[in-house]
Parts: sequence; structure tokens; C-alpha cells
Amino acid sequence: MTAFTHPPPRGFPEAEFAARTEKAQAAMAEAGLDALLLTTEPELRYFTGFLTQFWQSPTRPWFLVVPAKGKPVAVIPSIGIDCMARTWVDDIRSWSSPQPDDDGMSLLAETLAELAGRTARVGLAKGKETHLRLPLGDFEDLGGKLPEVSFQDATAILRGLRMVKSGREIEKIAYVCGLVSGAFEAAPQLFAAGQSDIEVFRSFKIECLKRGVDDVAYLVGGAGPGGYGDIISPPQGRRLRDGDVLILDTGCTFDGYFCDFDRNFAIGRADEAAQRAYDTVWRATEAGLAAARPGATCADLFAAMQGVLEEGGARHDSGGSDVGRLGHGLGMQLTEWPSHTPWDDTVLVPGMVLTLEPGMTFAPGKVMVHEENIVVREDGAELLTRRAAPELPIV
Amino acid sequence: MTAFTHPPPRGFPEAEFAARTEKAQAAMAEAGLDALLLTTEPELRYFTGFLTQFWQSPTRPWFLVVPAKGKPVAVIPSIGIDCMARTWVDDIRSWSSPQPDDDGMSLLAETLAELAGRTARVGLAKGKETHLRLPLGDFEDLGGKLPEVSFQDATAILRGLRMVKSGREIEKIAYVCGLVSGAFEAAPQLFAAGQSDIEVFRSFKIECLKRGVDDVAYLVGGAGPGGYGDIISPPQGRRLRDGDVLILDTGCTFDGYFCDFDRNFAIGRADEAAQRAYDTVWRATEAGLAAARPGATCADLFAAMQGVLEEGGARHDSGGSDVGRLGHGLGMQLTEWPSHTPWDDTVLVPGMVLTLEPGMTFAPGKVMVHEENIVVREDGAELLTRRAAPELPIV
Repeated sequence: MTAFTHPPPRGFPEAEFAARTEKAQAAMAEAGLDALLLTTEPELRYFTGFLTQFWQSPTRPWFLVVPAKGKPVAVIPSIGIDCMARTWVDDIRSWSSPQPDDDGMSLLAETLAELAGRTARVGLAKGKETHLRLPLGDFEDLGGKLPEVSFQDATAILRGLRMVKSGREIEKIAYVCGLVSGAFEAAPQLFAAGQSDIEVFRSFKIECLKRGVDDVAYLVGGAGPGGYGDIISPPQGRRLRDGDVLILDTGCTFDGYFCDFDRNFAIGRADEAAQRAYDTVWRATEAGLAAARPGATCADLFAAMQGVLEEGGARHDSGGSDVGRLGHGLGMQLTEWPSHTPWDDTVLVPGMVLTLEPGMTFAPGKVMVHEENIVVREDGAELLTRRAAPELPIV
Repeated sequence: MTAFTHPPPRGFPEAEFAARTEKAQAAMAEAGLDALLLTTEPELRYFTGFLTQFWQSPTRPWFLVVPAKGKPVAVIPSIGIDCMARTWVDDIRSWSSPQPDDDGMSLLAETLAELAGRTARVGLAKGKETHLRLPLGDFEDLGGKLPEVSFQDATAILRGLRMVKSGREIEKIAYVCGLVSGAFEAAPQLFAAGQSDIEVFRSFKIECLKRGVDDVAYLVGGAGPGGYGDIISPPQGRRLRDGDVLILDTGCTFDGYFCDFDRNFAIGRADEAAQRAYDTVWRATEAGLAAARPGATCADLFAAMQGVLEEGGARHDSGGSDVGRLGHGLGMQLTEWPSHTPWDDTVLVPGMVLTLEPGMTFAPGKVMVHEENIVVREDGAELLTRRAAPELPIV
């Protein structure tokens, strides 16, 4: 566990963006790509440091072009010039957005033609866990303006780079994991029978903010007698009762980097089935911690955790709450590649930040899920979260 | 101003979703569409009530098919079954996601073929302020599975429906506007010279949560001596100083509905240029309030506000911070169609919820922006926010 008493510095030195860009350009050369065209928040931020909540507004598209050599070039609405000018990017091309007809497409087409040529092979994200953040009609128009450009899938390049975090990225994630570990440890002061789940969520959000997170970008959970079922619905106003099991699962951020983990609490008392299920997923997490070494694959991690879950009585037909995996990457997004599934053969390397998230259905409509965040080091997993208690905590 | 002391009920009665669906189906029939294919959070939520923060994870795609007749059909990852089963949707088709190869595309193709036929015209959002939330490669695969289906732009249908809010939608927006108006009114207790902007943001978020918002989904701002420039960058740790002008602009949510407005504060003292600019944008907002009547267009609203700004000395070359419009729609998203621009000829009708957001550059690198939220009623604009003070408040 990396301990921080003070927040790590915000942002990154220019050298970090230069290194990311050079690595991308080496991979582009190998893949025969003349440029990358990026359209989403994490993609732009990864190569520039451009950090703003303004992405919440779907009105305007934002673009970054990574040429074969040199710094990325931003093609963005003029409202973003000042914010982008604070990054290491020098070449910022802008237009007044929104526009009724040509909302940046001519400027983007000219930029691509200038930087990569009119017959370029341009990489963009077309693969798993990606999407294109501009109107599909505008993307079709762009193709019409550059009929000889071919748009190729560059997901493998982006995935390969982003899956392995730098020391500074790990510091930010570790810091927010530490803050939220503290918020969970304050649970006995925050939650009690009789409180509505809406108030449970609100108290926890305030606690996380008070402890120093920038945002509680994600909070889901559930509670029910002896266990919970659905954990992705928002709170409905149900009051906590004696004998409930409560789970909260949160993605808080610091400087644009996420934690993503959960904690379980029994309200007043814990019944035996819930305690047993808790013990099983706790031990499955231990198995994941032991297995998460460089050279192992995500499939190995899955197998290590799944073995404990099955021994512990996990139902194969897990019904409606099947999450399809036992953990994933995290960093600039709540969830990132890879996935701990039987089919993901991604090989773990030092610097990967991952969740271990074993879950099981232990009774009809009752699930138990644990989650910790780790970084893979040369000698194995290092916890970024403070380990959950080995027995279901009663509050 | 609609006043609420208690939160309005969460969710909507089934009849509201049925009415939305029937209106969409009438428009689909007119446009010759056999089905709608929806992929984004607000689109799915609009027709079903499916509300979850799980969309934060980019891993899994989610789909809704609106057939020519009958209820929408959900095609979703199995982790969402329980949450979707609480909505009015009966037909929920699911698969265990993520999958390495076929991540829902076969199931979606079968569903479209069954509900609309293999030569259907399927509408989806391809227009302004939309995007397709699934991997582009998967969308190309879907086209390959349904080679005779033609995918048409249905943005106009979605835009037409969503721009006009129901009474229950307006209640939710009005409620969160009221809560956040209160948080802004508490500014003298929250902000002071010497405080870092990071702490300003944190205090304000906690205040909003304490007052009852579900989430502070969006908070941007800026501060500087005599005025601010960039307002979309995150706080950097700069301390407030005597003579600063501070702006905070927030989108908080209640039950999935947003407010979106800002307030300005002078720290300690206000200089004359800032006071004059504040007066100009305040009066521009008054002009917008007077102009926002059924039958007027967004271009009329723009002209009414822009006239006051130009009389007040707004620079035509507004430089780096050009926002391109003087307000917009809001509701399920922080910003929605329409836009108050010279070219948006959308005709205002009762039930539209809009921001009025006049802004001006009043000195090099200094902007002043105001924002209020309104609903258009038969007899004109009704404020949902409590009107900003007519003079720049000093805290």
C-alpha cells in the first residue's frame, strides 16, 4: 500500500506527453498508419493533458490528430482554446462551434490532409470499449471530403499504451484509493438502520469530498435482507433495516484518475449465508492477489478467482446479475481494458492498474461482490486500496 | 418561480413512457421508419426510465429498439436485467457481456430482423449533438449481418420529442434549480479571499449535496483579478484574492434531470469594468426573458440578448472564449437542442426548458457570463432558477 499524506502534484510534465506520443508514433509506423484521429475525452487527455468537465455537453465535437512525427495537433471549438493552450500542444486550430452545417469537418479534413496526405491511412478507435464521439453523419461527411483516406482500427495501439500506467498515473490512482478507503472505514459513523438509501449515498459522497476527492463520478450500490441483488440501480428511498447487507461501489476521481472499488456492510447483524459468501469472495480476492504477477494472463487471474468461487458454492447459472468478468483495468476511466475473463489472454506487465472483482450468486437473487484495486509490480500485486476486512463488517 | 419544499416523486408513471413511445411511432410512420435503434444513455432513459450510473463504464454496449408498434424492446448486457425489469419494458433480451467476438451484435441483428424485417428502414441518431455509443467496428458488423437494412438519420424525431418537456420533467428540473439557487445564495458563507479554488469547488459541491441534489455532475468556473478568462479549466490551486471576480457554473442533477446555470461573485470589492459588464449581461438576460414567448425563435432570443450585449460594448472579436451561442436546451443532459444562435430557427413552444446564457468579452482576456434556466409557458418565460442579483454580489 502506497501511503500519501499530501496530494500528488496535478498534471504531468511535458516529457510524459512526449513519451506517450513517441510510443504511439512508433506503433503507428509499425502498423503503417500516417496519423491517429482521436475524438473522446480520455483519448485527447492522454496525449495532451486536456482536462475539463465540459465534455458533459454533447453539443460540440473535439478532435486531436497525432501525426507520424511531432506534437499532436488540436482541432477544437474556440471555447476550448485557453484550456488547450495550457497543455504542451502548440498547434491549436479552432472554429466557432456549434455551426449548423460544417461543424469542424472542413477544418478537420484540411488538417488531416496537411499532416498525413489525401491518401493517408488514418487510425481511429473502432474496437472494444471504444466509440466515436462525433455525429455519425459528420463522420460520413468527413469520409466524403477525404475519399482516398482509409480509416483503420487503431484500438490495439491505444489499448497497449494506456493499459500500462506511468509512476505519476499510479500515484494519482493510489491517492484517490487511499482517500476512499478512509471514507469506507468511516462507515460506522455514516450508515445506520432507518436511514434511507438516498441518504446513505449522499452521506458517502459528502464524506469522500471532505476527504479530498475531486468528484464522486460514480456511486452505485444496493441493500437487502441478508444480501442484495441488483447493484446498478440508483437508490429508491428504501430504508436500511436490521439484517440488511449493504454494498457501495464507487469511482471517485483525483486529477482525472479513478479508483473503482466496493465495500460490504451488514446492518445490525449478519446472517450466516452472507458471512459465508463474504468469506468466499474475500478469499477469491486473495487468490487474485497471489496470481497477479508479471507473466500471468487475465485468464489466469480469472481462473484463480473463479476456482475459489466455485469451491465456495457459486452458482454457474448466475442469472440476471452476470457481470461477465471478475475485474478489469482502470485509470482515466472507471473501467478500461483488459478484462479478467476466460478469453482475455492479455499478459500482465509491471505498471498495469487493475481491479480484482470476484462476485457470486449465493442464493436466489442474492449476490456478493468484492473489489480491490492493485498495481502490478515486478514482484507481484501491490494493493492501492486498503484491504477489506476479512469478515463482513457489522455497522 | 415554481417553489418546492419537498422533492417531487422519482420516476414517471408508465403512461408517460407510453405517450413518448406513441409520439415517436407516429413520427416514425410519417418518416417511413420501421424501427428506431437507440444506443445512448439519454435515448434509452427517455423511452424506458432506465436510470443508472453504470453508463460510466465504456465496456458494454446497450440497445433499445422502438418498433413501429408496441413497447420498446431492450437488448442489453445481462448485468442490467434487474434494473431494466423495474421499468415498463417487458421484452428484455440479454447476453453475458463483455464478449470477445460477438458482443451483442447477433442478438441485436436478430431482434431488428424480427421486429422490423430484413429490409427495414431503421432510424438512429446521426445528427448534431448525437453520437453512436458502440464500437464503430461493431456497427459495421451489424450492417454486414443486415445487408438490406438501411440506417437513416432519426435525429429530428428524437430532437422534436425531447425538446418539449412534460410537467413531471419540468418539476424535476425546477426542483434541482431551486436547490442550487439556495447553494449559490449561501456563497457568502462558502467563499472568501485566501481560499484555494480547489476548496471553493469542493465547498460548493458539498453544499449542493447537503441541500439535496443527487449529483454535482458538472462544475466549472474561473476567477481572476477584475474578471476571469477561461471558464472550462478545472481549478488549479490558485487562491482567491481581493478584487477577483469568481464564476461557478454547475449542472447538478435530481432523478437524472439537470440544472445548468452560473453565478458571479466579486471577492472583497468589485471594480467598475466588471460591474458594468455584469449589468450588461444581467440586462441581456432580462431581454431574453422578455423575448422567450411561444412563437418566437431561438434566433429571436439570440437577437434580443445580443442587442443588449453590443450596446454594452461586447467585442465582436470575442477571441478565445467564443461559446458560439447564448444558451440552449437542457433536461436529461446538461445541454440539449436547441441553440440560441442566429441560425437556429426552432420555434419556441410551451414546455421547452432553456438556458439564457448571454456572455461578453469586456476587456482583453476578461469575459462575463450569466445564465438562468427557464421554461416556456403559454404567456412567456417562467424562471426555474432564482434570478441573479441585479448588481455583482460582493462576498
